[in-house]
Amino acid sequence: SKDTWQDNRFAGVVTGLAWTAAGGEILFVESSLSKGKGRLTLTGNLGEVMKESAMLALEYLKSHADSLELDESIFDERNVHVHVPEGAIPKDGPSAGITMVTSLASSFTQRKVKSRIAMTGEITLRGKVLPVGGIKEKILAARRAGINEIILSKDNKKDIDEIKPIYIEDLSFHYVEDILQVLKLALTEEKAEA
Amino acid sequence: SKDTWQDNRFAGVVTGLAWTAAGGEILFVESSLSKGKGRLTLTGNLGEVMKESAMLALEYLKSHADSLELDESIFDERNVHVHVPEGAIPKDGPSAGITMVTSLASSFTQRKVKSRIAMTGEITLRGKVLPVGGIKEKILAARRAGINEIILSKDNKKDIDEIKPIYIEDLSFHYVEDILQVLKLALTEEKAEA
Amino acid sequence: SKDTWQDNRFAGVVTGLAWTAAGGEILFVESSLSKGKGRLTLTGNLGEVMKESAMLALEYLKSHADSLELDESIFDERNVHVHVPEGAIPKDGPSAGITMVTSLASSFTQRKVKSRIAMTGEITLRGKVLPVGGIKEKILAARRAGINEIILSKDNKKDIDEIKPIYIEDLSFHYVEDILQVLKLALTEEKAEA
Amino acid sequence: SKDTWQDNRFAGVVTGLAWTAAGGEILFVESSLSKGKGRLTLTGNLGEVMKESAMLALEYLKSHADSLELDESIFDERNVHVHVPEGAIPKDGPSAGITMVTSLASSFTQRKVKSRIAMTGEITLRGKVLPVGGIKEKILAARRAGINEIILSKDNKKDIDEIKPIYIEDLSFHYVEDILQVLKLALTEEKAEA
Amino acid sequence: SKDTWQDNRFAGVVTGLAWTAAGGEILFVESSLSKGKGRLTLTGNLGEVMKESAMLALEYLKSHADSLELDESIFDERNVHVHVPEGAIPKDGPSAGITMVTSLASSFTQRKVKSRIAMTGEITLRGKVLPVGGIKEKILAARRAGINEIILSKDNKKDIDEIKPIYIEDLSFHYVEDILQVLKLALTEEKAEA
Amino acid sequence: SKDTWQDNRFAGVVTGLAWTAAGGEILFVESSLSKGKGRLTLTGNLGEVMKESAMLALEYLKSHADSLELDESIFDERNVHVHVPEGAIPKDGPSAGITMVTSLASSFTQRKVKSRIAMTGEITLRGKVLPVGGIKEKILAARRAGINEIILSKDNKKDIDEIKPIYIEDLSFHYVEDILQVLKLALTEEKAEA
Ligand SMILES: [Ca+2]
Ligand SMILES: [Ca+2]
Ligand SMILES: [Ca+2]
Ligand SMILES: [Ca+2]
Ligand SMILES: [Ca+2]
Ligand SMILES: [Ca+2]
Ligand SMILES: [Ca+2]
Ligand SMILES: [Ca+2]
Ligand SMILES: [Ca+2]
Ligand SMILES: [Ca+2]
Ligand SMILES: [Ca+2]
Ligand SMILES: [Ca+2]
Repeated sequence: SKDTWQDNRFAGVVTGLAWTAAGGEILFVESSLSKGKGRLTLTGNLGEVMKESAMLALEYLKSHADSLELDESIFDERNVHVHVPEGAIPKDGPSAGITMVTSLASSFTQRKVKSRIAMTGEITLRGKVLPVGGIKEKILAARRAGINEIILSKDNKKDIDEIKPIYIEDLSFHYVEDILQVLKLALTEEKAEA
Repeated sequence: SKDTWQDNRFAGVVTGLAWTAAGGEILFVESSLSKGKGRLTLTGNLGEVMKESAMLALEYLKSHADSLELDESIFDERNVHVHVPEGAIPKDGPSAGITMVTSLASSFTQRKVKSRIAMTGEITLRGKVLPVGGIKEKILAARRAGINEIILSKDNKKDIDEIKPIYIEDLSFHYVEDILQVLKLALTEEKAEA
Repeated sequence: SKDTWQDNRFAGVVTGLAWTAAGGEILFVESSLSKGKGRLTLTGNLGEVMKESAMLALEYLKSHADSLELDESIFDERNVHVHVPEGAIPKDGPSAGITMVTSLASSFTQRKVKSRIAMTGEITLRGKVLPVGGIKEKILAARRAGINEIILSKDNKKDIDEIKPIYIEDLSFHYVEDILQVLKLALTEEKAEA
Repeated sequence: SKDTWQDNRFAGVVTGLAWTAAGGEILFVESSLSKGKGRLTLTGNLGEVMKESAMLALEYLKSHADSLELDESIFDERNVHVHVPEGAIPKDGPSAGITMVTSLASSFTQRKVKSRIAMTGEITLRGKVLPVGGIKEKILAARRAGINEIILSKDNKKDIDEIKPIYIEDLSFHYVEDILQVLKLALTEEKAEA
Repeated sequence: SKDTWQDNRFAGVVTGLAWTAAGGEILFVESSLSKGKGRLTLTGNLGEVMKESAMLALEYLKSHADSLELDESIFDERNVHVHVPEGAIPKDGPSAGITMVTSLASSFTQRKVKSRIAMTGEITLRGKVLPVGGIKEKILAARRAGINEIILSKDNKKDIDEIKPIYIEDLSFHYVEDILQVLKLALTEEKAEA
Repeated sequence: SKDTWQDNRFAGVVTGLAWTAAGGEILFVESSLSKGKGRLTLTGNLGEVMKESAMLALEYLKSHADSLELDESIFDERNVHVHVPEGAIPKDGPSAGITMVTSLASSFTQRKVKSRIAMTGEITLRGKVLPVGGIKEKILAARRAGINEIILSKDNKKDIDEIKPIYIEDLSFHYVEDILQVLKLALTEEKAEA
C-alpha cells in the first residue's frame, strides 16, 4: 500500500508525518528540478502555511548554499517543483518544514535520502527547528509504515517521553535544533539514481 | 455519439475515465503544442486539483526528457495547451493524471496513442501511479464506449477483483506502478498525422 | 434593429446563436488584430467557459496555421481582441466555439465571412465540433434575423429533425464534425475591406 | 457647479451622459497619455463592463489608426490613463463607450473636442454604435448642464421621438451608426492646449 | 501627540484632513522615491478609491512634468512609495487627492512643503479640484492641530460660509479650481533636507 | 522553550513584542538575503497590515541607504525574505514595524543585533516611530523571556508610567521618535556570523 515505507532510489523523496482528523499518517514530499529561471511550483492541494514552508526551505538553502557545497548560481538556472501526494486531500500547516528542506537539499545535491527515516518539524528562515503537534499519533503511524528512525525538534522530546516505551522500543529518535543537523542525519553521501 | 471510442489519428488525444454523480463516463484529454516560451494553458472547466495533475505531468516529462528521447530544450520553445472537453461540465480530482501525462508525451514525441485503450490513475512528481476511486463505474463506462484495454494503478487491482468476471470478460487490464510503464503501454512507435 | 443580419464587409464579424431565458437570440462575435506580442484580450461580459472557447479557438489556429496558409509567426506579432456585444448582458457557455474560431480565422486571413450564415457549436482543441443545447430556439431566432444557412455539429442533426419542417423550409443546414469543415463553409475567398 | 458644461481647452475631456437611481446626470471622461509601453490604466471606481468599454475604445483606435492619421507605433510608446470623476461614485455599464473612444481619439490626435456637445452609446470592436437606456433622463440632464448637441445611436431615435418637443427644442441630435461618424462630429480640427 | 502639526523638514510629507465616524482628523501623506523603474507602491491600509487618487496624482505629474520643471525621464528611473499612517486604520475615499499630488510633487522636486498648511479635495486626471464632504469637522480638526492655512475646492466655499466665523477666525482659506494652484500655494522654493 | 530570549549570533534576527487574546508574547522577525533582483518575500501567516510594515521598512532603508553606509545598488542585487515564526499563528497589525526595519538593517549591514533587547512600534515611510497598544502585556512577556532593554515610541512612555515600578525594575526603556534612533540602539558594530 502507498502508506508504507518507500524506497530511496530517487533524489528528493522524503517521508514526513501528518496528523489528521483520522489519526497519524505518513506523507511523502517529492521535489524535482528542471531547466528554468528559479521559479518555485507547489502542488498537492497545499494550504498557504504549507506553501510558506516550501518557500522558507528554498530560501534557507539559497542563503546556506556554502554549507551544502552548492554553487549559488544553480538556484537561478533551475525551476523547482515540490509536490505532496495525494492531490485529493487538502493539506496545511507548518510541520512539513524539515521534510521539505530535506527534499530540496536532496534534489539540489542529488544525495540519496537515508532509508527508513521519517521526520516532522517546523522550520524558520534562520534554520531553527520548532516543535509541532500530534506527535504520539504521528509516531504510531511511522511505526506502522516500517520507519526505524525519526527526526524531531528538541522541544518535542517531552512528547516522546510521555509515550509508553513499549510502543516505541524499535524506533530511534533524533532531537534537533537546527536544519543543518537534520540534513546531516537524513542525507547520505551516496548519489541518487539519475 | 461523443461518448464512444474515438480514433487515434492525431497526437495528444487520450481516453480517460471519469466518475460523476451520474455514474462512470469516458473523457478525452487533448493537448497541443505551439511556438512559444513554455507557457502551460489549461481549459475545460478544470478544478485546482485537476490543473495540478497537468502541471505534474508536464514537470515529470521535463525531468525525464531522456527516457522519452526528447531534447530538454523543446520545453522552452513550445507553449502547451491541455483541454478536457466538454466545457460546460466542471471537472476536478487527480484521477486524470496518467491520461494527462500520456497526452503530453504523445504531443511532445508525436507518437500515436494505441487505439481502444483507456486509463485512470493519479500521478506523483517522481512518477508513481496511485490508485483512484469509482473503478467499477468507470470500467463499465469504458466497456460501453468500446474500449478493449485499461491501465490502472497496481493498487486498484483489488477493485477489479471485486467485479463479476462476466462484466469484464472482453477487457484486458494493465496494472502499473510507474508512469514509464503507462507510456510504454499506451504510446505506439507510429508517428501521428501532422 | 441590432438583432437582424449584418453585413459582412469587415473581417472578423461572425453571427452566432445564443439561448437565453428569454428564448433564442443571435449574437455577433467580433475580432480585431493589432501590432503586439500575441496577447489575447476578451471583452463582452464573458464567463470563464466562453473565455476558454476563445483560447481554444486561437490555439487551434496556431497549431493548424498550415491548413489556413498562415505563417505561424503572425501569432507572435499581433495582439488579438475578441468581443461579443452587448456589454450589459453576461454571456457564458461553450456554444460560441465555432463562431469564435471562424471570427479569428477571418481576422487572420482577412477573408470575408459568407453572408447570411450563422452557427452554433462547441469546439475542442483537436478541432472536433460538439453538439450544444437550445437548438430549436436558436434556429427560430436565426430565421427571424434573416439568416439562410446554419452550421451545426453532426450530433445536433437529431434536434433539427424534431422541428416541424414548415418552420425551417427556407433554411439550409450544414452538419459538421470538424473545425476545418466550418471554415470551408463560412469563409469566402474574397478579401475583406481593410 | 461641477455638473455644468466644462470648457474644451484640453484634449481628452469629453462629456457623457449617465443614468442613475437619482435620474440623469452628465459625467466627464478624461484621458491622458504619458511616456510608456502601451499600458492602459482605468480609474474612477469603474465596474468591469465600463472598463471593457475603455479596452474596446483603445483597441478600435489601434486597428483604425490610419483613419485618424495616427502612426500605429504611438500606441507602443505611450501609457494611456482613462479617468471618470467622481471617485466616490461606483460607475458601470457600456453606455460611455462613444465618450471613451472620443476622449482617447482627442488625446492621441491632440484635436480639441467640440464645445457644448454630449454623447451616450455603446461601442463594439468593429465600430458599431449600439443604443442604450435612460435616454429621456439623460437628455434632460444634458439640457440642464448647458449642452447644445447630442450624439446617439440611430437605434435610440425612437426614444427621442417619444419626448415632448418642448423639452428638447433647443437641442440638436445626431444619430450615428459607427464610431467614425462620432469622431467626425465631436473632434474639431483645432489643436488642444498643450 | 501624533495628531498635531508636524515639521516640514523632509520632502513628501503633507497634512490632509479626514472625516471619520469619530469626527474630523488630520492625516499625513508621505511619499518616498527610490531607484527603480517607475513602480508605484501604496501602503497604509488604503481602499481602492484612495489608491486611485494616488494613481491619478502620479499620472497628473507625469503629463505636466513641464509645468513643474521636471525631466519626464525621472518617472522611469524612480519607484514611488506613498504611505498614509496609521496602518491599523482602514482609509478610503477621494478626498486625499490634492494631498497626494502635493506630496508627490514635493518628493519629485525636493521642494519643501509650506508649514502649517493642510488641504482636502478630490483631483481629476486633467487637474480639476473637486469638492469633498465633512468640511466643518475637518476644519475644526485642522485648527486643533495648529494649522493656519487650508486649501479647498472653490466648490467647498459654501461649506465654509456656513461655519460660525468665531470658530475659524485664525484660519485663512484658499479656494482652488486646479492642481497647479494647489502646488503654487503649498510648495515653497526651499529645498528639503536630503 | 522557544519563548525565551534567543542568541544574536546571526544577522537579521530581532525580538519583537506581540499582543494576542492570550496576553503578551515575544516574537522573532527573521530576514535573509539571497542573490536576486530586489524581490520581497513575506512569510509567517502575515496579514496585509503586517506585510505593509515590511514594505515600509525596506523602502525606508532604500531611501536612507546613505545613513547606513550602504551602497544603494545592493537593493537591486538581492532578494529579501522576511519571516515571522510560527507559521500556524495568523499575525497582523503595524506594531512589528521597528522590529522589521531593524531586522532588515541587520541583514543588509551584517551588523549583529544587541543581545537581550526587544522592541515594539509602528513605522512610517519618513521614519517616524508611532505608539502601539498592549504595552503592559508586552512588557511583562518581555521580562518573562529574559529581555533587559526595550525600545518604544516616545508616545508610549505614558503607558510605561502607568505600570507599577516593581514589575519593571530590572528593565531599561528607550523612548524614540525616529527609526535612526532605533537602529543606533539595536545594532552593534560587531559583524554577525556568516
Ligand atoms: Ca493516505
Ligand atoms: Ca529516473
Ligand atoms: Ca458526456
Ligand atoms: Ca491536422
Ligand atoms: Ca439582443
Ligand atoms: Ca475600416
Ligand atoms: Ca454629480
Ligand atoms: Ca496643461
Ligand atoms: Ca489618529
Ligand atoms: Ca533623511
Ligand atoms: Ca508562542
Ligand atoms: Ca550560517
